[in-house]
Amino acid sequence: MTVIDPLHLRFTLDEVLTLADVLALPAFATHDRESIEQILATAEALATDRFLPSYRQLDDNEPRMENGRVVLPAEIAHALDAFREAGFYGMTADPEHGGLALPRTVANAAFLWFQAANVSAANYALLTMSAAELLAQHGSPEQQRRYMLPMVEGRFLGTMALSEPQAGSSLGDIATTARPLGDGRYKLRGTKMWISGGEHDMSENIVHLMLARIEGAPKGVKGISLFIVPRKRLDADGRPGPWNNVVLAGLNHKMGQRGTVNTVLNVGEGGDTIGEIVGGPGQGLACMFTMMNEARVGVSMGAVAHASAGFLYSLAYARERVQGRSPDQKDPATPQVSLVQHADVRRMLLQQKAAAEGGMAFGLYLATLGDIKKGELTQDARTDAGLLLDFLTPVFKAWVSEESLGANWNAIQILGGAGYTRDHPLELHYRDNRLNPIHEGTNGIQALDLVGRKAVMENGRALALFLAASRETTRQASAVQGWSEGAELARLLEEALARVEQAFAVIATLRRAQGATVAMARARHAMSLVGLAAFGWTWLRIGLAAARRQAHGEERGYPPEFLAGKLHTCRHVLRERVPETRHLLDLIAAESDCAFTVRDEWLG
Amino acid sequence: MTVIDPLHLRFTLDEVLTLADVLALPAFATHDRESIEQILATAEALATDRFLPSYRQLDDNEPRMENGRVVLPAEIAHALDAFREAGFYGMTADPEHGGLALPRTVANAAFLWFQAANVSAANYALLTMSAAELLAQHGSPEQQRRYMLPMVEGRFLGTMALSEPQAGSSLGDIATTARPLGDGRYKLRGTKMWISGGEHDMSENIVHLMLARIEGAPKGVKGISLFIVPRKRLDADGRPGPWNNVVLAGLNHKMGQRGTVNTVLNVGEGGDTIGEIVGGPGQGLACMFTMMNEARVGVSMGAVAHASAGFLYSLAYARERVQGRSPDQKDPATPQVSLVQHADVRRMLLQQKAAAEGGMAFGLYLATLGDIKKGELTQDARTDAGLLLDFLTPVFKAWVSEESLGANWNAIQILGGAGYTRDHPLELHYRDNRLNPIHEGTNGIQALDLVGRKAVMENGRALALFLAASRETTRQASAVQGWSEGAELARLLEEALARVEQAFAVIATLRRAQGATVAMARARHAMSLVGLAAFGWTWLRIGLAAARRQAHGEERGYPPEFLAGKLHTCRHVLRERVPETRHLLDLIAAESDCAFTVRDEWLG
Repeated sequence: MTVIDPLHLRFTLDEVLTLADVLALPAFATHDRESIEQILATAEALATDRFLPSYRQLDDNEPRMENGRVVLPAEIAHALDAFREAGFYGMTADPEHGGLALPRTVANAAFLWFQAANVSAANYALLTMSAAELLAQHGSPEQQRRYMLPMVEGRFLGTMALSEPQAGSSLGDIATTARPLGDGRYKLRGTKMWISGGEHDMSENIVHLMLARIEGAPKGVKGISLFIVPRKRLDADGRPGPWNNVVLAGLNHKMGQRGTVNTVLNVGEGGDTIGEIVGGPGQGLACMFTMMNEARVGVSMGAVAHASAGFLYSLAYARERVQGRSPDQKDPATPQVSLVQHADVRRMLLQQKAAAEGGMAFGLYLATLGDIKKGELTQDARTDAGLLLDFLTPVFKAWVSEESLGANWNAIQILGGAGYTRDHPLELHYRDNRLNPIHEGTNGIQALDLVGRKAVMENGRALALFLAASRETTRQASAVQGWSEGAELARLLEEALARVEQAFAVIATLRRAQGATVAMARARHAMSLVGLAAFGWTWLRIGLAAARRQAHGEERGYPPEFLAGKLHTCRHVLRERVPETRHLLDLIAAESDCAFTVRDEWLG
Repeated sequence: MTVIDPLHLRFTLDEVLTLADVLALPAFATHDRESIEQILATAEALATDRFLPSYRQLDDNEPRMENGRVVLPAEIAHALDAFREAGFYGMTADPEHGGLALPRTVANAAFLWFQAANVSAANYALLTMSAAELLAQHGSPEQQRRYMLPMVEGRFLGTMALSEPQAGSSLGDIATTARPLGDGRYKLRGTKMWISGGEHDMSENIVHLMLARIEGAPKGVKGISLFIVPRKRLDADGRPGPWNNVVLAGLNHKMGQRGTVNTVLNVGEGGDTIGEIVGGPGQGLACMFTMMNEARVGVSMGAVAHASAGFLYSLAYARERVQGRSPDQKDPATPQVSLVQHADVRRMLLQQKAAAEGGMAFGLYLATLGDIKKGELTQDARTDAGLLLDFLTPVFKAWVSEESLGANWNAIQILGGAGYTRDHPLELHYRDNRLNPIHEGTNGIQALDLVGRKAVMENGRALALFLAASRETTRQASAVQGWSEGAELARLLEEALARVEQAFAVIATLRRAQGATVAMARARHAMSLVGLAAFGWTWLRIGLAAARRQAHGEERGYPPEFLAGKLHTCRHVLRERVPETRHLLDLIAAESDCAFTVRDEWLG
């Protein structure tokens, strides 16, 4: 079983996103298309050989706590060793830090293989790479040398230590304290909850990036600072030494993603836990957002990976398994047909194809925006790419995580009872994937971020950039020679974009007239509306790329049926999904909002 | 934690369904409202004390196979013993068979407690009661005495043994054979798959109701006959004797509902497996449909039970857990508010309330139709009730199973990370509930049944009855004094009903012009459309009942906020959900249908 289709990945990179333009940027000058192909081939091979085989084992044999320590199944280290030996922890890191300086577009494409093969193991790497990136942006040179470099090398692993038992979504209410020791170091005290990879012996050290409140700091998010809290303290040469009193208080036992150990940690209990500050006092959340935004894209790339694996698996099954006959065939003596011949099975396959391939293009486009933000020559282009990335990040996180879970729902359904058993990987993808609408900010939080912040920042410039970029695609789609349907599909997207504008206008009016609480009650519907529009935009871009290749696609290795599949799925998304935006706008524009007006005492 | 709210259940029975009318039928003359209350109270107590406590254990400690036998966790027998001692296996059975002769409306309401508390244990009872009902309708007097009575007493348990490895949804292709022994007995040979409760030592015997093909029978469904195949053969006095060579070939390990052992069985292997025929040769599927239709309603009552348990649990959590502040509150020094204060949490609670209470009313209405079909005085009334029940059964099965699973999705989401852990019951409800769109005929099969058979049978009379009954409700809702909104909500349902008519007209035209295969490709959307309309109808009935009680509800024990909650949820469903039918009709009426027109080779 393959979990990612390499040809679809290549089409996404070369035709939809035009990776060539990214590679032309000076920041990525050390790479060319051929070296990239090597990276992707290596990722495919390692994911297939070292990650995929233990996917089920990590669920059957989850990490456990013994004498205050975490015991991980050996398969995790076996997988991550291969990742480290390939230098993949440093995929996007700078060469002077020992990194490969790959465009994020490529790094995320390569990492998708690992997420699709075995997300529970891949998570350790995702957290570590994000933690290293945070220190690359906000750490001091010494912090980079002592903590970041070992993460780039994969010797130390990283965590995000944000939540606490009383403060999950509401980070402003965290209570862990930091007492200054006067030399830039702090003594930390408190309890951290939901810390993935929070304790184990697998690596030389663990670098917790921990939010805490310096004693006397103001309440709320402004009083939050960020600290490096290592599991073992480093000596002057950076060698891990004595234990730093990060105490394992317990494990959370999850429905899925069980191989990623999830911990409750106490710090400063029974002994000193020493941390050093990153950025300045009160800068904690701003610094942490570097990592959170990466993680938000990262987890929904994981959702895409699940959609892809589920799609390919259920497609193979549907082609092989025979069952039933067409409704026009009443003769029971005729042979049964394959599942893929049934219209409803094809419907469920088409939804999955749209989610998997569209999600891949959507997510890797965000990575491309990151590359442009980093490497583009003009400041204006960098700023705009950053704004569009900020706007689309919560949309990708929330909308794609739900659509991909729906894809896994359909994958199970195609297999029927077999799909519900643990003999097939689909139920595990479905369970694993259920986490993605929750972690790194629930989808409700993403909706508030989109509507309350991203859509209105810089006077709505990010929203305007989204609309302008989408309309540029509709203009192009209407003008492709030989793609007669392009104009009609573009018109359907135009309608959805107009609805996006109307929705935000309604919300702005509500906000002025009745305040943020009333206005924000429409945020979840607005998120779905923008998500559908962005999905439609993505698929129109895919359709456009396929239409442009139709005359000469085979020269680049795309068979006619491959391109026909892209065009047909584009047709499906624009004609059959994007029009759902009409109902969503109705909900947003309706005078009353039952979820908002319902009173607690009416609920039951 | 309570898993069913008794006041809501009572309101459903007395105000929405008017149980009094059912109790007035001579068939149920032995009962009155007070004795019914006793039954419901007993169900609540037994479910809470004997079923609920082991819900998690049955998942942690699933049945296993040892030396060809199934070892069940002891908690299952502990629960079922209580069910048996209360005489509940005979809830709907006739008094001359030792039954309680309860209306099905009451029996299903009582059983909902057990399904909500511990579906894995309750399934054994559901299968047994359905098997007994099948024999009550189709068995010979001797078969009833020897096999049905012990099931009514709960001494023998029953199974449905239909599927085979090569024939899951396509029952016409089963290959198990039956060779006549000349005395009404047969030797069976073959393999049965997905048999819940197929092997264990918990009861004196197991009665498999098994489909097989008498040697020489025609291919397809017409060649299928039904057999009683006991695990142990009975002697002349009905005592279980020697083993009947029903060989346990393996277990299926499921994502959820793990306590319900799911088996692969071989018959006639290494020794004779003897069965006796029920009904005549070739009558197997017709007889089995008695049981399948009950099971279809039964599994979606299970889905309702999951929705109810998840709703009540997440509501309690949302009221207790404080997190965050309202969007208008920027001062971090103010206390955090409870989750229920957040608009998006209320949205997710409202969807659950609608699914749980609406599903309960929808499902128990089907039971009422069964009671009318059985006990009404005129043949016309009985026939009409039967037709409407036939029409609504696949709708309830398919639509409610998906809506309830969405409710469990929301329950998890409200708890966030906590909801994803095994410390709370929600992830287990979600996993258990995922089976319901699959078993007893996948939802795709239900859609084909609805569109291809139920909507067109008797010249469309069942569909016409559904429309007429719904329109009677809209007429009444428009005329309630003091319910100013009733007419507007009724109008919204009228629009949906008109769309149902249009959808079936489109499909009929397609069928005439292009054949069944093209027409049936729209079946899944038509199912969703009818499901939403039926859900809207159900909620308009609930709203109507609440509106009628508003003046004097407290006299019957319904506080004003209780009735306001019903009216508000009715408003939510009619205003915010039922209009989704517009998009569904668009999909059905569209010229092209991408899922149908996609070619296999385009899919990937």
